[in-house]
Parts: sequence; structure tokens; C-alpha cells
Amino acid sequence: MQSLQQKASEWSGVSIDDAFGIDDTNLFRKLGLQTFINLSTNFYNRVYDDEEEWFRSIFANSEKENAIQNQYEFFVQRMGGPPLFSQRRGHPALIARHRPFPVTHQAAERWLHHMQHALDSTTDIDDDSKTKMMNFFRHTAYFLVAGDELKNQNQHIPCKHAAAKKDDS
Amino acid sequence: MQSLQQKASEWSGVSIDDAFGIDDTNLFRKLGLQTFINLSTNFYNRVYDDEEEWFRSIFANSEKENAIQNQYEFFVQRMGGPPLFSQRRGHPALIARHRPFPVTHQAAERWLHHMQHALDSTTDIDDDSKTKMMNFFRHTAYFLVAGDELKNQNQHIPCKHAAAKKDDS
Repeated sequence: MQSLQQKASEWSGVSIDDAFGIDDTNLFRKLGLQTFINLSTNFYNRVYDDEEEWFRSIFANSEKENAIQNQYEFFVQRMGGPPLFSQRRGHPALIARHRPFPVTHQAAERWLHHMQHALDSTTDIDDDSKTKMMNFFRHTAYFLVAGDELKNQNQHIPCKHAAAKKDDS
Repeated sequence: MQSLQQKASEWSGVSIDDAFGIDDTNLFRKLGLQTFINLSTNFYNRVYDDEEEWFRSIFANSEKENAIQNQYEFFVQRMGGPPLFSQRRGHPALIARHRPFPVTHQAAERWLHHMQHALDSTTDIDDDSKTKMMNFFRHTAYFLVAGDELKNQNQHIPCKHAAAKKDDS
């Protein structure tokens, strides 16, 4: 069976080395907290205004302000800054926390589309940082698509049991 | 609904502040790579020799050498060292990667029992580092117990559908 990161690399086209190129520089120190806040704000402004209703609706039960904070705190923590996310919410546990959402290939591409635009419209992000971050995001998006498929694997077992019980009664 | 980290704190008795006290110092720089390798080796030597068969059997399908490497690479990455785990395997995704295992309260306590002994028998770990690490481990163990319960939540939905279909036919 292919591992999560093998699927993520194959589907995203980003090798694991390129995906974690974010660790070659301390991007938090280079860009600063405010840039991360601006990036996540730009990103979610686009998402919550998306003309594609199927994508916008994925976020319908989340407060935009929370979504922004969760995202920039995770980015800051993962890209060399203080562990803001864990201090408030514990381990990132990325796959488990995306469990309520339908993380399909199509949703990954839409997420990446908005993120590319958000990166391009946030001032003070140099091209090298942009490339590193997009590689990380692309790989991570497909890592979550691979994680999403774990949900389906699980569902088969109890249903067989339920069916078997029904037949027995 | 209680969040993952609320459950983890309640069940472990460790607040989120204490759990992430590991971030107050750079434990990797303080202890060094070899200490982390020794700790995980000590830990898994105990686990693979556990007299409690129910616990030992959880690890029966994993190679001990792999288990050791996965663990110390994650610890090093999380405690201020280079991102060894992600460079090889991608995001930690702790809950998803523990999905194949039955992470019960009892299993958490057995894991912590072995880890306490492993910490005590590894040289060059000072008392303050030990306390910080045990708080982190205790909280994380119960975070994973909380994560394990997500599996059951999911299982109900498709089974209801299956039952409904059967009744309709």
C-alpha cells in the first residue's frame, strides 16, 4: 500500500524534499507575523466570497475570523515561529482536524487556486518564499486528500457486521 | 462538544500550558540527538518485551527498528531539532497515523508507564526536562485516545444508510 506521503507526492507532483523546503529558511523570521496574518486574511476573504458555491459551502459552518486565526497560527508554528497553534489547540493533527470536510482532489485544487492568488496579493512575500510555500501547500493539500480517503477505508468494516447481524436475526 | 485538547487535558490531568511547556526550552539543543535515540530505544525495548501480551501485540506488525526511528525523529522535530520526521514521512498527522491501533485509556497508561521507566533509565536527562517531557507525553497520549474515538463517530453514518437500504428493499 502507498503511504500518505507517497500519494501526496504523486498527486501533487511535489517531492517530499521540495515540500519541506520551507524548513531550509526560517520563513517566520523572514516574513514576520503580520505578513502571515495578512496572507490568511486575504485567503479567507477569497474563500468566503468564492463564486463556486460547492467550495464556499465547505466553510459555511466555520466563523471566518476563527478560520483565519487557525490558519495563520498553524503556518507561523510550522514555519519557524512560536507554537501559537499548539498553545491554544494542541497538536495540529492535520488529517483528523480536516475530517469533517470533503477534501477531494477538486477541493484541493480550488484551495490552492485561492492560496496562489492570496500569496500574489500579499505584499512583502518574496518570490523564493512564495515558491517554497506553494510547494508546501500543494503537497499538504494532497496529503489531506490522501488522509480523507482513510475515512472510506474504515466505513466498510462495521457495515459488514451490521449486515451480517441483520441476516442472522 | 468537547474539543480534542479539552478531552486530552481532562483525561490526562495536564493543562495545555503544561503540555506544551516543552516549547519553553529547546530540549533538542539541551539533550542532543543521541539522548533521543537512547530514549526511544529504551522505550521500545520495554514495549517489545512487555509481559502484558495485549499491549505487546499492538506493536506486533511493526518492526522495532522502524518504531524507534519514527519515534525519535518525531520527538527531535517537535522538541526544537531538525524536521527529521517530515523530511522522511511528511506531516506527523498524529491521530491519523495511530488509526490502525486501539488507543484506549488503558493503552495510554501502559505506554506512559513504559515511557516513565525509559526516561528514568536514560542517562543525561535532567529532572526539569523529564517533567516537561512527561507532561507532553501524558497530554499527547490522551489526545490520541480522544482522536481514537473519532473512528467510532464515523462508523454510525454509513451503517444507518446500509440498514435503511435493507429495510427499503
